[in-house]
Order: sequence, then C-alpha cells, then structure tokens
Amino acid sequence: MRQIVFWLTVVAAVAGVVASTTLTPGRADEQPAPAYVTTMPEGYRDWRWISSAHEAGSLNSLGAVLGNDVAIKAYREGTIPYPDGSIIAALHYVHAPNAENNKIFGRPQSFTPGPPTNIQFMVKDSVKYAATGGWGFGHFSADGKPANAAFMKPCFPCHAQEKAHDLVFTRYAP
Amino acid sequence: MRQIVFWLTVVAAVAGVVASTTLTPGRADEQPAPAYVTTMPEGYRDWRWISSAHEAGSLNSLGAVLGNDVAIKAYREGTIPYPDGSIIAALHYVHAPNAENNKIFGRPQSFTPGPPTNIQFMVKDSVKYAATGGWGFGHFSADGKPANAAFMKPCFPCHAQEKAHDLVFTRYAP
Repeated sequence: MRQIVFWLTVVAAVAGVVASTTLTPGRADEQPAPAYVTTMPEGYRDWRWISSAHEAGSLNSLGAVLGNDVAIKAYREGTIPYPDGSIIAALHYVHAPNAENNKIFGRPQSFTPGPPTNIQFMVKDSVKYAATGGWGFGHFSADGKPANAAFMKPCFPCHAQEKAHDLVFTRYAP
Repeated sequence: MRQIVFWLTVVAAVAGVVASTTLTPGRADEQPAPAYVTTMPEGYRDWRWISSAHEAGSLNSLGAVLGNDVAIKAYREGTIPYPDGSIIAALHYVHAPNAENNKIFGRPQSFTPGPPTNIQFMVKDSVKYAATGGWGFGHFSADGKPANAAFMKPCFPCHAQEKAHDLVFTRYAP
C-alpha cells in the first residue's frame, strides 16, 4: 500500500514537472489536464438507476445514483476495475417531508426529494485521472457551477478507502 | 364527484353482468379482464429514474420510482392525464443503515437499499382499467408473486385522492 502511494506520488510529481515545463501561457490546448471534472457530462438525467441513498444528519440528503451504459454494464457483470468510459452520477436533493403525501397517508412518514443541492460525478479515465485512482471526481452546485480545487481535494482520499470496489461506494440495487 | 362514483359503480356493475353472462368455464380467453395488474411488466429495471422515496415509520422503505418512455415523456411535458401505455414502477427496499459507509464517514448517517421488499406498478389503460381511474395497480412481493384482490382493494381509493395529478403521487425530480 505504501509502495502504491509512493508511486502515485512519483507519477503525480513527474506529471507536474512535465506539465510545468511544457506550459505555454495563453495556449489553452497545452494546459495540463484538470485534476478533477469541471464540465458536467451530458445526458446524465437519462441514465439508468443504480441505487438510491439517504444521508441523514447534517447532509440531510435524498437522492439517486445513475450510470451511463458502460458503468451499468460493469455493475451488472461485476467488472472491477470499472472500464474507461464509465460515468457514475449522484443526484442530491434535500431530504424533505412530503406534506401532501403525509396528509393522505394520515401520518408523517413520507420523505421525497426537495430542492436540488448538488450533482456529483465519477468519470473513469485511467490515463487522464491516473493520479486519483483512474477516476475524475466532479461536484456541481444546483446552479451547475463546478466546485474549486480545494473543495475537491478530500474526494480521492475518502473514496480510496473503497479500494476493493474500485473507489465506488454505491452498490447496485437489484 | 358523487355522479362520477355513481357512474363508475354502474359501469362496474354492467361489466360484471356482461362478464358473468358470457363466461364459459374452462375457456381462459373469455375470462373478464383482471381488475389489477398480475403480470410484471418487462424491462422495468432499464427504465429512467423519476424520483426516490423514503417512507419512514412502519414501512421503513427506501426506493426509486422509474418510468417507461411513455410515462417519462408525460412527466417531462406535464401531460395530465397520462396517456395509455404509461407505466410507472416503484421499487422498494428496506431502508437499511450502511455500516461500511458509516465506518468510512465516521458517523451513522448513511442509509441505502437493503433487501428488496416489493415492486409496485401503475399501468395506464383507460379501457381495461376504466373502473379504477384508467390505472391498473400491481403489487409484487420480492419473490415476484402478485398480491391478491383483497390486498389490492385499497390502492384505487387512496390514489384517487391525487385526482389533480391523475392519481399519481410521485413528482419528477429535476
């Protein structure tokens, strides 16, 4: 494990050196690849459902995890690691009591998605995102703006604890 | 409203008389149409996500609501009533604490789908299911067996309270 961390550090350092030595200011096509996802993948709202999730406490979140075709195929076939091209989207909303349902049901039992809070992505590209386990992480607020680098920094070390599942927390609901 | 109930009762009564007078025992093709859905629609696990739902209390349920293409189009375009051919599926699971996530997050916050409990369907066919607002209701236990008629009886009167949304509780999550 320590060796892996060491080599990842070496790779990241070398990549940084290469990037900094080849950078020509003003030439956008020669910028280093971003360390995380800053453009929202298209069409995610049509992807298939992987699972739902309720995060209680301060997050107070209810949402769904969707996958593109490559990710869904890998999930269903149990392919680990996920192949390049896999994208997983986590759509998050306020975990909101549903007053209309509760009135009909006659008890305060129903919670459904309130206002959207954020959308997160994991994009598999083993070359572009080699420094973060082959996954590019993305976080977009409800207005579609990507988070900054400081906000994104804890994503990889936290997901890295799910090494046995190729850094993916969500399991496929049957 | 009373007139509608009266006419639905008349229609149901007439349909019952017609069915009972034309029934020939042993001829399956002449059985009256079932009052609810007894065969699980195919391919529902590939349908698109409408929303997630957490039902607390004795239900203790976490799940997702998916729609076939006809239903998704109606949802997105705000079409009420839903056209014939619309099918909405509600996949229910135990609202289960996720010990693996909680260990990594360092607090008991994460709930994800546990074992499946049941799958429910609403199938729009304004002729076949005229007596229940044009919707056929279906409930299948985790082993795929349909519920019996007595179990299904409360579905329509409860959903009928959602008349303004054509009997559908679930709203589309953006």
